[in-house]
Amino acid sequence: MKQIFIHATIITMVEGQQPFSGALGIENDRITYVGPVPTAKELDAYDQVIDCQGKAILPGFVNTHGHAAMSLLRGYADDLPLKKWLEEKIWPLEAKFTSEQVRAGTALSVLEMIQSGTTCFLDMYDHMDQVGQVVTEAGIRARLCRGAIGFGSEELRQSKLNEAAQFAKDWHGAADGRITTMMAPHSPYTCSPEYIRQFIEKAAELGLPIHTHMSETAAEVQQNVDEYGVRPVEHLRRLGFFDLPSLVAHAVHLTDEEIDILAEYDVKVAHNPGSNLKLGSGIAPIPKMLKKGLRPALATDGAASNNNLDMLEEIQLAALIHKGVNQDPEAVPAYVALSMGTLYGAEALFLDKEIGSLEVGKKADFITIDLSGAHMCPLHDVVSHLVYSASRGDIQDVYVDGKAIMRNRECLTLDEEKIRYDAIKAFEAIQ
Amino acid sequence: MKQIFIHATIITMVEGQQPFSGALGIENDRITYVGPVPTAKELDAYDQVIDCQGKAILPGFVNTHGHAAMSLLRGYADDLPLKKWLEEKIWPLEAKFTSEQVRAGTALSVLEMIQSGTTCFLDMYDHMDQVGQVVTEAGIRARLCRGAIGFGSEELRQSKLNEAAQFAKDWHGAADGRITTMMAPHSPYTCSPEYIRQFIEKAAELGLPIHTHMSETAAEVQQNVDEYGVRPVEHLRRLGFFDLPSLVAHAVHLTDEEIDILAEYDVKVAHNPGSNLKLGSGIAPIPKMLKKGLRPALATDGAASNNNLDMLEEIQLAALIHKGVNQDPEAVPAYVALSMGTLYGAEALFLDKEIGSLEVGKKADFITIDLSGAHMCPLHDVVSHLVYSASRGDIQDVYVDGKAIMRNRECLTLDEEKIRYDAIKAFEAIQ
Ligand SMILES: [Zn+2]
Ligand SMILES: [Zn+2]
Repeated sequence: MKQIFIHATIITMVEGQQPFSGALGIENDRITYVGPVPTAKELDAYDQVIDCQGKAILPGFVNTHGHAAMSLLRGYADDLPLKKWLEEKIWPLEAKFTSEQVRAGTALSVLEMIQSGTTCFLDMYDHMDQVGQVVTEAGIRARLCRGAIGFGSEELRQSKLNEAAQFAKDWHGAADGRITTMMAPHSPYTCSPEYIRQFIEKAAELGLPIHTHMSETAAEVQQNVDEYGVRPVEHLRRLGFFDLPSLVAHAVHLTDEEIDILAEYDVKVAHNPGSNLKLGSGIAPIPKMLKKGLRPALATDGAASNNNLDMLEEIQLAALIHKGVNQDPEAVPAYVALSMGTLYGAEALFLDKEIGSLEVGKKADFITIDLSGAHMCPLHDVVSHLVYSASRGDIQDVYVDGKAIMRNRECLTLDEEKIRYDAIKAFEAIQ
Repeated sequence: MKQIFIHATIITMVEGQQPFSGALGIENDRITYVGPVPTAKELDAYDQVIDCQGKAILPGFVNTHGHAAMSLLRGYADDLPLKKWLEEKIWPLEAKFTSEQVRAGTALSVLEMIQSGTTCFLDMYDHMDQVGQVVTEAGIRARLCRGAIGFGSEELRQSKLNEAAQFAKDWHGAADGRITTMMAPHSPYTCSPEYIRQFIEKAAELGLPIHTHMSETAAEVQQNVDEYGVRPVEHLRRLGFFDLPSLVAHAVHLTDEEIDILAEYDVKVAHNPGSNLKLGSGIAPIPKMLKKGLRPALATDGAASNNNLDMLEEIQLAALIHKGVNQDPEAVPAYVALSMGTLYGAEALFLDKEIGSLEVGKKADFITIDLSGAHMCPLHDVVSHLVYSASRGDIQDVYVDGKAIMRNRECLTLDEEKIRYDAIKAFEAIQ
C-alpha cells in the first residue's frame, strides 16, 4: 500500500536538513518519498493521502537501554542509593519474577513506550521469549538481549550464557525483521572477566553486537579498580569487549582518557539522564563525549528508576542538565538532543541503515506530533519546541514498518485495560 | 453552592498527612470538608456530587516567578548565554512590546498555565493593567507586580516607581480577591541601591511584600561585588530589603553564609530549575536551603527561557537534578518537590493562609489528575508517580475559588483558538 502524509512539518533528522513544510510518502514498510507536497496528479498514485496540517512528522524515538518488565516495580521504592535500592528492594522482588511477571510488565512498558512515541527499544532482561512475543504483537521494533548476572554456580552461569545465545539465535530477524538481538553480560561488577569473555566470544561467533552496563556509579568504578587494578573502560578494552560493535549503558564516571578510548573504538553510549539523576549516580560527561566525536544516544533504563519511559523527557533532560551543570548554555543544543533521541539511538543499536531518520529507503518508523498547543505557540522554532516545550500528550500517531500502531493517541495493537489489569495482578502475585 | 468530589485519592499537602481515598467538599469558594467519603445521607446536603474514581485531587500548582507576556518570544532565541540572550535578543524585542503584546502574551501564558494545573502565579512585568484584566477573565489567581528596570533617566525611573505603586494599590484585592500585588525592583544589577530603597519604602508604606531577581548568574554576583563591595544577599540586607516580607527569584549562586542570612530573615526563594539549566546559569543549592529550614518554592520564569510554563516539569526537575548533582538519591524527596510546587509556593507568595493545601477554610483552589495512564501503573505510590511519571496531559480539571476553569482538559474561561491567533498577530506586529 502507498500512503502519503502531506502538509506536515517534516523533521528528517538528516544532518544539515532544516525542518520544512512538505510530505512523507511510504510504500508498505519503506519510506519512498520525502519532499514538498506533490501535485494533485502525483498524489493520485497513492492509495491514501493523509492530511497532517498542524503536525510535525519525525523519526520515532529510539530507547537504547532498559528493562521493560521492571515497570511492575515503578515507584515501589524511591529516593534510595543504587546499591541499597538494588540489593534490598529491587533484586529480592525481581527474584520472584516468572514469565508471567515479565510478560505483564513488558506489555505495560511497551504500551507506555508506544504512547510516548518510541518506535524502537532495547531490552535487557530474563524470560526474553515473553518480551519477543509482546514485541511481535505490539508491532513495535526492538533489539533484545537476555542479560546475565554472573552470580551463583558455574552451572547457573553456563545455563544463562546458553540461554542468552539460544535466544539471540532464535529471535534475530523475527517479527518480519522488527526484532534483532544482542549478547549482554550485565556489568563488570556482576560478571567475572572470564564470564564477560565468554559473552564476547559468543557474540563474535553469532555476528551480533554486545551490550553491558558500565561506570554507572563511582562506587562501582572503585570496586573495579580494587578487584582488577583498572577502571571499567580499560578492563573491558583488555577483555576485547570493544573489538565488537558494542554499546555501554550509563558511562557516567569517565576520565578524559576513558572518553578517548571509547571514541577510538567507536563504542556506542546509552545516556540515561533521568535514571542517573534519580538514583544520584551522577551526570555523564556528554558535552566532552560530543567534542570527541562520540554520538551518545538516550535511554530511560527500567521504569523502577525513572519512573517512566518517556523519551521526550530524556531528550529534554539531555538538553537542559548539561547546560546547567557546565554553566554553558551552548552545551547540547536542542537539535543535538533530538538527534540523541532518534538518529544517534539508531546508531547505538546498529540499526541506522534501517531507521533513525526520514530518508528514502529506510523503514517507515515515524511519529506525528500536534503543534497546536498553547505551549507550542508561537511556532518560532519547531525543534526547540519539541525539545523544550512538548510533552508526551502531544504525540498523536505512531508508525512502525509503515503500520499505524497508535492513531489519535489510541494504541491500536494492544488492549490497554487488560494490560493494566494484568500488570496489577502480576505484581500482587509476587508480594 | 455546595459540591463534593468523592472517591478521589486526596493529597492534602498538609505536612504529615498521607494520601487517602476520600472526598473533598466545597461551598462556594471555600473548602468545607476533607475526609472519608460521607454517607449517602450526608451527601444529600450537597448540591452536586462529582465522582472522581481513578483521579487524584491536590492543591493547584503555584508558579512563584515569571513574566507571562514573554511567551510571545518562546523559542525565538535559544541556547545562548543569559547576558547575550537578554541584551541582544530579548530586550530589543521586548522594548517594542505595547499593551497589545502584553495582553496577547499573557493570555497565551495563562491558558498554558491553566492547562498544566497552575492555579496561582506571580507575574512581574510592564503594562500590568493588561495582566490584571486577563487574570480577571481567566478566573485564575495571581500575585502581580510591575517590575522596574532602573536604566534611563531619573524621570523615567520615577514614573516607573509611581506606576508600580499605583498598580499595586489599584489592583490589590481585585477580581474578588484573586489578585494581590507586590512591589518589584527588577534586580540589584539593573537598579541602583537608591532606587531599590525607594521600592522598599513604597512597599512598606503600602503594606505589601517585595520581590526581585537575585544571584541568577555568577557574572551578576561578581558585578555586585565590583560595584558595591559585597555580594547581592548582603547588599539587599543592608538596603533593608529583607526587613519586609520578601521573595527572591533564582538564588543560584549563594555561599553558606548567604543561605544563613536568607534563613535568618525568612526570605522566600523562587527556584527556577528549568530556566537556570537552560540558560546555563547554574544549579541553586536547594538541599542546603532545605537543611537550613528554608522552604524554596518553584517557578518557571518566562517562557522565553524555559520554554514552557509547566509546573509538573519544574517539580520533576527539582526532584531529579539535586540528586544527580549532589550524587545523593535522598536529596529533595518526591514529597518535598511536590510541596515546593504547592504549599511552599503559597508561602512564597504570602498566600498560605488562603491556598497551598487542602484544608477546611482555605480557598477551593485544586486540580484533578488522571491516574489511569500506563505510565502511572501500578499505583504503588501516588506522590512518586505525580512527581516522576506524570505529565501535563494527565491533568483533567482545574478549580479556582471553587469554580471550574478547566474541565476534562478544556479551558472554560478562555477562547483557545483566538488566544493563539492573537499571540501570533501580536508577535508579527513587532517584527
Ligand atoms: Zn539498566
Ligand atoms: Zn525572571
